[in-house]
Amino acid sequence: MGNDKKFVEAITSMDEDFAQWYTDVVKKAELVDYATVRGCMVIRPYGYAIWENIQKNLDQMFKETGHENVYMPMFIPESLLEKEKDHVEGFAPEVAWVTHGGNQELTERLCVRPTSETLFCDHYSKIIQSYKDLPKLYNQWCSVVRWEKTTRPFLRTLEFLWQEGHTAHATAEEAQEETTRMLNIYATLCEEILAIPVVKGRKTEKEKFAGAEATYTIESLMHDGKALQCGTSHNFGDGFAKAFNIQYTDKNGKLQYVHQTSWGMTTRLIGAMIMVHGDNSGLVLPPKIAPIQLVIIPVAQHKPGVLEKAGELKEELTKIARVKIDDSDKMPGWKFSEYEMKGVPLRLEIGPKDIEKNQAVLVRRDNREKIFVSLDELEVKVAEVLEDIQNSLLEKARTAQNEKTSIAVSLDEFKRLLDEKTGFVKAMWCGDRACEDAIKEQTGATSRCMPFEQEKVDSKCICCGKPAEKLVYWGRAY
Amino acid sequence: MGNDKKFVEAITSMDEDFAQWYTDVVKKAELVDYATVRGCMVIRPYGYAIWENIQKNLDQMFKETGHENVYMPMFIPESLLEKEKDHVEGFAPEVAWVTHGGNQELTERLCVRPTSETLFCDHYSKIIQSYKDLPKLYNQWCSVVRWEKTTRPFLRTLEFLWQEGHTAHATAEEAQEETTRMLNIYATLCEEILAIPVVKGRKTEKEKFAGAEATYTIESLMHDGKALQCGTSHNFGDGFAKAFNIQYTDKNGKLQYVHQTSWGMTTRLIGAMIMVHGDNSGLVLPPKIAPIQLVIIPVAQHKPGVLEKAGELKEELTKIARVKIDDSDKMPGWKFSEYEMKGVPLRLEIGPKDIEKNQAVLVRRDNREKIFVSLDELEVKVAEVLEDIQNSLLEKARTAQNEKTSIAVSLDEFKRLLDEKTGFVKAMWCGDRACEDAIKEQTGATSRCMPFEQEKVDSKCICCGKPAEKLVYWGRAY
Repeated sequence: MGNDKKFVEAITSMDEDFAQWYTDVVKKAELVDYATVRGCMVIRPYGYAIWENIQKNLDQMFKETGHENVYMPMFIPESLLEKEKDHVEGFAPEVAWVTHGGNQELTERLCVRPTSETLFCDHYSKIIQSYKDLPKLYNQWCSVVRWEKTTRPFLRTLEFLWQEGHTAHATAEEAQEETTRMLNIYATLCEEILAIPVVKGRKTEKEKFAGAEATYTIESLMHDGKALQCGTSHNFGDGFAKAFNIQYTDKNGKLQYVHQTSWGMTTRLIGAMIMVHGDNSGLVLPPKIAPIQLVIIPVAQHKPGVLEKAGELKEELTKIARVKIDDSDKMPGWKFSEYEMKGVPLRLEIGPKDIEKNQAVLVRRDNREKIFVSLDELEVKVAEVLEDIQNSLLEKARTAQNEKTSIAVSLDEFKRLLDEKTGFVKAMWCGDRACEDAIKEQTGATSRCMPFEQEKVDSKCICCGKPAEKLVYWGRAY
Repeated sequence: MGNDKKFVEAITSMDEDFAQWYTDVVKKAELVDYATVRGCMVIRPYGYAIWENIQKNLDQMFKETGHENVYMPMFIPESLLEKEKDHVEGFAPEVAWVTHGGNQELTERLCVRPTSETLFCDHYSKIIQSYKDLPKLYNQWCSVVRWEKTTRPFLRTLEFLWQEGHTAHATAEEAQEETTRMLNIYATLCEEILAIPVVKGRKTEKEKFAGAEATYTIESLMHDGKALQCGTSHNFGDGFAKAFNIQYTDKNGKLQYVHQTSWGMTTRLIGAMIMVHGDNSGLVLPPKIAPIQLVIIPVAQHKPGVLEKAGELKEELTKIARVKIDDSDKMPGWKFSEYEMKGVPLRLEIGPKDIEKNQAVLVRRDNREKIFVSLDELEVKVAEVLEDIQNSLLEKARTAQNEKTSIAVSLDEFKRLLDEKTGFVKAMWCGDRACEDAIKEQTGATSRCMPFEQEKVDSKCICCGKPAEKLVYWGRAY
């Protein structure tokens, strides 16, 4: 197993240098390559296949809840971006500007969309007239650009892939229902498909989306205890509708403004999976999202019958799983490492001795358990083990998150807990922006969310000591 | 049927003004809306659903032939674009330039990709080392930008959606095979799914892609006799490999340049379908690509049992087709027109009298044939009729193309035929660029392709009279 060891040693240990471990995994698992343009990614086939699976799952849930896909232009004229005051203030400093087209200077600059609220609003103002036109439940899959100063693959890049939903409703109630519905869909994707446990809650005024009345979020914890925002859903009220004059005639013939929402998830989710499930051998993928769920490695494949048997097993297992067979001329040990690095949930080894015994060896990626299975029971066992891996990963991540979540009732305790184990600190907050700023300054932690599941862990604000009603999850964030 | 008539009259007749008819269909069928940015489209749900079906079909064929999806950045640094001389000459005059990012002027301008050869080459130069790394068969789905002066929805827009395949091979033979394979896949999509007959052939030197050794194309004819290029596949030889230094070590340890191809299809295909199948009532969609294959219109739907029966039929037919039921409170005649405008291949009418007789009425969109079907045979009949519509549309389009394709042996005849019926003119060409230019100047027709199926319709060049070996399809093009 010399090759195996050499291969594994090529990545930095996560305890030694978590950031370098992350970069190593991203490169060695062949998820991305750095592009010539600063801060942009080349998403390689294996990384893109993960994204395609995320897309497939989300898109299905969107369509099942009545959403339709559309495509808006990638350019926003400066005057359009400026129509909603808070929105332009939030985004203008970080956009890319097109100033020339076809050798001519443009009369008006165009920004490359950082997000498309303004385009959807412009379109809605043209196509919505009557209550019969509502709701409009649109989504688009595209890339957006934000001119970030420091970037990291998947987590923060100049350009990233995402979906952005934009909806218009007759009433405030319907908009609020939609905002919640989509946040729940995001939580379902994270927990049931990506095996990432999340805390659902609302952002503070300070942390909400530029132009929103309220922003809801799902927050998760990485291996290093830092928090990652996995998806957000915004209720705009009628703010954008007033700025863009999106009105409809109601059943009584009265003109009304629509109420709007938007919600988005990005390629950042791939970064989240790496940092929640990965280990020192590389990526660990939950079966439901893995492009390859089971890899077959023939052992002593030059011996008669081995490749044939491996081929048969592939054919059989393809009925229930995404299977790959690697019959290249690399050493088995080398192959083991390669698919461990790529996080393939289950490995099947089959050699002459196994064939003799009518068995195969299954090796789980998550806990390395070796399972000897009779070939007669293989199909049932593989399905069972894949399901168990999916559940175990979520369970393990949930345990890790719980262990890294603490309660603080004083700022000293807050700081100590955060330094000791990094993670979520739950603490009461009075609601004042000044306290939120002070906590960040003194601890480096930002408010992640006010969770839907509130607890009263104390009666006073952890910062100013005044009466406090709100429990907040705080954390250092990506 | 007063409503029906009014609705239909809202679009211009195609004999009166073909361009206006096209624009009317695009708008009234709710395929696109004009965006605030000049020359860009908002692709609406119905238009995007057609694109999703095109994507699904193509993507499956790509994957079945071993291709993998990736994602490259949308920006290309000016210095990278300039690496291949012919390529930059072809594209630089029509790109959009980003000069500022996040309030700062960039040290190097970035163009928004008009196509991504340079990015793929840059990436390939990093990841290809050995013959074991070949072939690389990559594809990406994205949007690209070309700064066109005059634009029309789907046919020519500043930004459009497409896929671009980019492959690298060990040998010239393999690259040529790939180029042909992908052209054939494009032809299959057009003929078998979109019901658009195409002529396969090679572009002349003048018409080939900037940087290619050879460009292959599939060309089709629209209702108005103008030609439309539906997809192209390029063989780059080792030109890009030399410009980007993409080398691999062969089995003998010798350094070799790779041979490359690229191939693309765009949202323009939706424009082609409109102009090949549409009529004065609007869009006509081939069943295999139609988002809705059958629409159920309940007649006298307030009468007891009608909506229930319509619902039952929907449930039954959903097993074999994409079905929608329209039980809104509009008049049936109005609904008929609306789904005719949207090109839904088959309409099912069901009213109290039909229920009494245990029958339904099917109405074909393509030829308006009314078919009374016993409900006991409905499933079989619907499948049968949908298949027949698909075949009839291709047959009809093939007949129209044949009728509009003529042979000319003198320039006078060429001009007369082109003026009489617009369409393809087949004529011999000596191979000289001067003759190609002269023909364009005198007739307005460009060389569409040198078809794979060559015929010798004359022995001399239609322009200069010198001996000529090449048959060329000429036509006025979109």
